[in-house]
Formats: sequence, C-alpha cells, structure tokens
Amino acid sequence: MMKLQLADALSILARTPATLDALLRGLPGPWLRANEGPETWSPFDVVGHLIHGERTDWVPRLRMILEHGDARPFEPFDRIAMFKESQGKSISELLDTFATLRSQNLETVRALQLKPADFERRGLHPALGPVTLGQLLATWVAHDQTHLVQISRVIAKQYADEVGPWRQYLGVLNH
Amino acid sequence: MMKLQLADALSILARTPATLDALLRGLPGPWLRANEGPETWSPFDVVGHLIHGERTDWVPRLRMILEHGDARPFEPFDRIAMFKESQGKSISELLDTFATLRSQNLETVRALQLKPADFERRGLHPALGPVTLGQLLATWVAHDQTHLVQISRVIAKQYADEVGPWRQYLGVLNH
Repeated sequence: MMKLQLADALSILARTPATLDALLRGLPGPWLRANEGPETWSPFDVVGHLIHGERTDWVPRLRMILEHGDARPFEPFDRIAMFKESQGKSISELLDTFATLRSQNLETVRALQLKPADFERRGLHPALGPVTLGQLLATWVAHDQTHLVQISRVIAKQYADEVGPWRQYLGVLNH
Repeated sequence: MMKLQLADALSILARTPATLDALLRGLPGPWLRANEGPETWSPFDVVGHLIHGERTDWVPRLRMILEHGDARPFEPFDRIAMFKESQGKSISELLDTFATLRSQNLETVRALQLKPADFERRGLHPALGPVTLGQLLATWVAHDQTHLVQISRVIAKQYADEVGPWRQYLGVLNH
C-alpha cells in the first residue's frame, strides 16, 4: 500500500477524464446504457455521477475543511443526482463536462499548495463523523477507480452468457 | 445482457489500448508496480499479459477454429509468460507493443468477414472442452474488461488505509 502523496494522487485524478473518453466516446448505445439489473448504473450514469462529484463533493468539501474545519458538517452528497441531471445529454457532452470540471478542480487544488501537514486538518462528514483532508483526497482517487471498475464490470457482464464455458475463468462476471 | 455482434465486440476491443494508455502512460512507478499482495499482478504485469494474449491466444485460436475446427485442441495459454517477457521493458514500450498488436489483430479479424453463422463454428479448448468461435470472441471482450477492472482495483487498494472511514463506502477496497 502507498502513503498519500499529493503528486501521486493528482497523477491519477488527472488521468480519469481521458481514460473514460478512450473507453466510452463513440461506443454503441447498448454498451453505454447497459447495467447490472434494477437499481444499478450504466456507464452513462457513472459519468453523470462523477460530474456531480466534481461540482458538489470533492473540492467543496476540501474548501469546507480549510475554511471551517470540523465546525460544520459537509453537505450530504446526492449519489443519484445524475438521473435527473444527465437527462437528454449525450455521452460526448458528459465526457466534455467532466473533463472541464476535473481540470478546473485540479487547478484549484494545485493553487492551494497543500503541504503534508494539511492532510491532518479535520472536517466533519455528515454520516461518517470526523475525517481528514488527506482522507478526502485519498477517497477522491479511490472513488474514481471504483467507478472505472464498475464500468468495465458492467461491460464484461453483458457477455456473461456469450462467453460460454470461459465464464469460470472470468470472476468479474459472477460479481 | 447483449447478444454477441461483431461490430459491438470490435468497438470495445479497439478501445482497450487507448484506455490503458490514458490510465497508465507516465504514471509514477509506485502505481505501475503496485499489486494486491503475493502472487498478484501489478498494472505493469497486466499489460504484459494482454500482449501475450494478442500474440498467442485470441487470433491464433480463432485461426485454429477456422482451419481445424474441433479436430485439434488449442495450445494452452501461458497466463504468466509476461513475468519473463516484460523484464527490462518500460510501460511505454509495453503500451506501444500492445496497441500495435491489437490493431493488427483487429485488422485480421475484419479481413475474415465473419458472419453470425461463423460464431457457431466449434473449437476444442484444452481444459474447457468444446467451445465456439462466438464464445472465443465474447471472451476476448470480457477478458479485456476483467483486466481493466483489475488495474483500477489495484490502484484503488493502494489507498485502502488512507481513505479512513470512507472505506465502508468503497466496496472494491475490501475485495
């Protein structure tokens, strides 16, 4: 496992828009709208969720810690806001929006010139209680990756039957 | 779930090199060499494994089905050949090699002008027994995605401790 370092975290966060772009832009609609069953998300849904996070979660919470510490809890994050916000949009629009917001947010973070000591600054999560700025940054990184995991798992599972006997070698299909 | 269609399958297969490139090229070494513990693979290892698949697995087996049907079993696939083959190479070299091989292999597949009836043609897997050409193609697609899942899971898990109490929201970290 790795200790949080700002440069490492930024190197991952900066790559997510292009990774999603390479995987999803121009993909046939059935892949983009596929999911894992009722109440699960499609690749299209996930991009909208990541956009909402850029707007309302990561940087706003980081600012809250810097300005108010743990005196005020973060605004709760709406995990399903994208079902309304993404309506009528194309995947290209969503990918462009995500790339722009992520780029702006990383600029904001770089401009703060955070030092390792800042990672210990405390905030208050409305459900989890006390958290630190470093934990927030690490979660931003890990959260991106969990949703890349989800998108590739959703795609793979569309062929769970089509792979026939190979299914036993592909553990993700049985998730 | 989706029925196998050649255009859908190719649309995913064609995107994997650029997806890996966006995620991994230029990434700090600790991310590229990170894994999930003994006997597990790093992102660097996975790219080497995908290269070996392009060379010895997917298209060679497809040709075997077209030329010999189920009269001869496929050559067994060496899942860990990359530990030797990738030695001394950089991630940039591996990404370039994978992109070239994948592009050539998709050209080969397109040139075969496979029809849906070809998906039923049978081959013989050395361990799984009878399989079809369609199952082989679907497995190629799903296999790419399982390894994208793996890479993002490995990256996420490096911060399993650093995320603090958020860990309970990030199921992938407990895999």
